[in-house]
Amino acid sequence: IVGCWAALATADDPLPSWNDGAAKQAIIDFVAKVTDEGGPDFVLPEQRIATFDNDGTLWVEQPMYTQIVFAFDRIKAGAADHPEWKTTEPFEAVLANDYQAVFAEGEQAGVKLLMLGHAGMTPDAFEQIVVDWLATAKHPRFQQLYTDLYYVPMVEVLQYLRANGFKTFIVSGGGIDFMRPWTDRVYGIPPSQVVGSCIEVKFAEVDGKPTLMRLPQANFVDDKAGKPVGIQRFIGQRPILAFGNSDGDFEMLEWTTAGDGPRLGLIVHHTDALREYAYDRDSMVGRLVRGLDEAKERYWILVSMKDDWKKIFKFEQN
Amino acid sequence: IVGCWAALATADDPLPSWNDGAAKQAIIDFVAKVTDEGGPDFVLPEQRIATFDNDGTLWVEQPMYTQIVFAFDRIKAGAADHPEWKTTEPFEAVLANDYQAVFAEGEQAGVKLLMLGHAGMTPDAFEQIVVDWLATAKHPRFQQLYTDLYYVPMVEVLQYLRANGFKTFIVSGGGIDFMRPWTDRVYGIPPSQVVGSCIEVKFAEVDGKPTLMRLPQANFVDDKAGKPVGIQRFIGQRPILAFGNSDGDFEMLEWTTAGDGPRLGLIVHHTDALREYAYDRDSMVGRLVRGLDEAKERYWILVSMKDDWKKIFKFEQN
Ligand SMILES: [Ca+2]
Ligand SMILES: [Ca+2]
Repeated sequence: IVGCWAALATADDPLPSWNDGAAKQAIIDFVAKVTDEGGPDFVLPEQRIATFDNDGTLWVEQPMYTQIVFAFDRIKAGAADHPEWKTTEPFEAVLANDYQAVFAEGEQAGVKLLMLGHAGMTPDAFEQIVVDWLATAKHPRFQQLYTDLYYVPMVEVLQYLRANGFKTFIVSGGGIDFMRPWTDRVYGIPPSQVVGSCIEVKFAEVDGKPTLMRLPQANFVDDKAGKPVGIQRFIGQRPILAFGNSDGDFEMLEWTTAGDGPRLGLIVHHTDALREYAYDRDSMVGRLVRGLDEAKERYWILVSMKDDWKKIFKFEQN
Repeated sequence: IVGCWAALATADDPLPSWNDGAAKQAIIDFVAKVTDEGGPDFVLPEQRIATFDNDGTLWVEQPMYTQIVFAFDRIKAGAADHPEWKTTEPFEAVLANDYQAVFAEGEQAGVKLLMLGHAGMTPDAFEQIVVDWLATAKHPRFQQLYTDLYYVPMVEVLQYLRANGFKTFIVSGGGIDFMRPWTDRVYGIPPSQVVGSCIEVKFAEVDGKPTLMRLPQANFVDDKAGKPVGIQRFIGQRPILAFGNSDGDFEMLEWTTAGDGPRLGLIVHHTDALREYAYDRDSMVGRLVRGLDEAKERYWILVSMKDDWKKIFKFEQN
């Protein structure tokens, strides 16, 4: 096997942080065939739409989704003004950093939490809060800024696809306004190519000044069956390639790969407890069950972090 | 005045279908200053967001919004299967082509109408219906395909802005899925850069096949105060230039021009009854009152079709 792939490891390898293997080859083969103008699988550039989940696909999501850490910090920051929170759930559990207790209620708890401290200000003010938080908050294990915890191999895929005429989009269950302030800088994906969950925003003239205000009310949850809906609404085209990591991405991969012509579905499988984390079926965060069971029959590529990625983070010593 | 502007009419005029004058000069000056890297008004390319209304700004909307004509045709096409429509409103008025009667109810009538014949099928099926209709339906006065009734000067503006690093978006009260099938071909604006009103879409597995279904239920009305909301939700950045034609665009222009730094708001004023239509305050379609009254104090540019456009349609003889 090594000898077979070794020929490809040239100086202009588009995916240098990937180990040679079936996953890397599948990506390269796919790009080659959809860009082969004379070939049977050629896809016009304007139809080369690729969608990527964010948490656990492009950046770390363990031990807890970054936006939840942010939401907890927002509540902690407000706690001084709310002494009653010390004895009121979910605040009590938040102040104790008890993710399990907060999420015992189920997903609704997460949605409710995301509202707290995410509404009642303008989009500009919220963006500043996000930017300020990301400038200092550090990951508990890696002690790095969260925006430095993107996966190098995935950014290579994004760049490789764009270099081949693809338009790359994020389609994430996370909050759209939590991602947009930094995705262009980190992934090269501008705000208008970020699809995510969103809350209601209201326009009003305040003292003659046009103003947008964020309301504590969900508008759209971009997860599971919401992902194909979000793709239709925001992008308006069916992707030909989709990359996810959990069952929240199942319907996106299903929708993507059920289209006519060449299609590629990929799943980042977190198999590397040493360099990152190892989790799937039993994880509270990024649970992957159906995708794991059905990947093979659906011809979706399981990307093993441990085996397929030579390097995961930019701060790793090589 | 003629002598003053004449010097600019060179071979590489970026807006050849515009007469020299204040409106053309305002556009050219704006582009020059935001792209002047050393200058005080330089804007980074990633912040050069420009939004355009569609009906009456990029293509003809008289005597009736194209999508309403389409909706009427959808109802007429279904009438053979529904003999009862002949005596039921709003069908009776639709079958009689009586726009006034249909819209006597107010805007809700329009929304309801847009649902009829726009839901109960997949997005792909709806796109095919739109494409098929646009391939044959002709404008009652000009006897041209609707997609040939775009304004040549406006397409020049779109191209000129993009050539100068702008990203161009449509932000229309019209249905997003009625525009997306053809905006790339006609305006060079891809589906993901079209913001518009939309209905609910639902994902389901039907016989094991992932399917999206259009539901007869409004999701978002992208008009008036909805336009800044749509801009925030779909684009995630405040435009620096916005172009509209009716009071449905007022809040978009207000939101755009209230931002810091260089801003440009423009209104197409329909003043040419001979070559197109002349209407503003009293029109049922594309009514313009507040924009007309406040344009001057807000430094918004009123573009007079009659005076500022040398050519309107591509089929005109020069
Ligand atoms: Ca994920
Ligand atoms: Ca209009």
